[in-house]
Amino acid sequence: MQKKQIGKRILSANEEYALKNSQFLAERKKLCLNMISSPGSGKTTILARTISELKGKIKIGVIEGDIQTDLDAEKIRATEAPVVQINTGGACHLSAVQISSALENLPVEDLDLIFIENVGNLVCPSAFELGETGKVAVLSVAEGDDKPAKYPVIFAKSKAMLINKIDLLSAGAQVDFDIDRATSDARRLNKAIEIFPISAKTGEGMNSWYDWLLKAVRNLQR
Amino acid sequence: MQKKQIGKRILSANEEYALKNSQFLAERKKLCLNMISSPGSGKTTILARTISELKGKIKIGVIEGDIQTDLDAEKIRATEAPVVQINTGGACHLSAVQISSALENLPVEDLDLIFIENVGNLVCPSAFELGETGKVAVLSVAEGDDKPAKYPVIFAKSKAMLINKIDLLSAGAQVDFDIDRATSDARRLNKAIEIFPISAKTGEGMNSWYDWLLKAVRNLQR
Repeated sequence: MQKKQIGKRILSANEEYALKNSQFLAERKKLCLNMISSPGSGKTTILARTISELKGKIKIGVIEGDIQTDLDAEKIRATEAPVVQINTGGACHLSAVQISSALENLPVEDLDLIFIENVGNLVCPSAFELGETGKVAVLSVAEGDDKPAKYPVIFAKSKAMLINKIDLLSAGAQVDFDIDRATSDARRLNKAIEIFPISAKTGEGMNSWYDWLLKAVRNLQR
Repeated sequence: MQKKQIGKRILSANEEYALKNSQFLAERKKLCLNMISSPGSGKTTILARTISELKGKIKIGVIEGDIQTDLDAEKIRATEAPVVQINTGGACHLSAVQISSALENLPVEDLDLIFIENVGNLVCPSAFELGETGKVAVLSVAEGDDKPAKYPVIFAKSKAMLINKIDLLSAGAQVDFDIDRATSDARRLNKAIEIFPISAKTGEGMNSWYDWLLKAVRNLQR
């Protein structure tokens, strides 16, 4: 317990586990991304497509967080990627102790990248560090372009923002979403944020996201 | 403090205020509905259209809950309905004490119906009673039909579920959503829940929702 020295702030239980997870991942040079969004933004579809299309390039595992059901884990299992399901039993976010236990149940040594799919919630998960390498915010165009302004914390803390379901903006579509507004609001909160407009359904824009992931894995393993 | 008798469960501060709000509303025969959904399901658009279309029939006021900004309150103000903005400053749900204070700042005696637009979050707001007459869950078809199964608490507790953005299901649209699945999952959790498939944008299905509101107001004032 050397880190609990007098004069230093005492870490919360969650922060202790987050630090432990962070050290565990860093020692093994594993990239770990915490995916955060509202329910139904398309996190699971993004992950399933990413795993399938990067097969043969990098090995990906998933920690699936849900309040109830293993519907999402089933979709990930169909890609044959290793997946560990966490049911929070009502809690609105994943906690670092749950990730610590999930990491013990994943074949971490064989993986290059671990995705954490957090509980669908744009608010609470952003307040709980899990020891991840970085957070990725997902926003679907159906949710409206005012979300970075209205829910700023997650956009301020994320390394990347995926603007999903851009197929709904195609000619004749009924969804209004100003990508420039969402982008400039997010950049106002976070100059360094990488922004990828994508459709996990059609594949549009996904290559830039894959390139970013591959580069992040390579930089870490160098 | 008569309700804190020995042998009775002591109420939390939130429950105390919820009880107080509930009594305040019941004495005045005011219907108060707590609207809960993910960010971007369309709560504000539903309220603005409902207020405009029921003008002359019933008087509606709104309590707007947001983490930051008053973007939603501005949209409600454009309808000329009285509105009180609560900024939670980061908190993921409204609390009963905030509603108690907001009710003091609304012309309650002049109103028939008070809508509370909770913070966009399908999880946490369902755990905090505000003293409302009832909860209404809003789900947009863009979020997917698995949401009642994955986020059961709010659907189990609500008097009604609005399935919004059904215009996205029209011929040639790119959204997959099985209304029957969402409906049967919600009814499994809550036999009595009223379900209204609507589009707040086009107005489709809104008349049934208005009739339900008018009937609820009349029943209370009888």
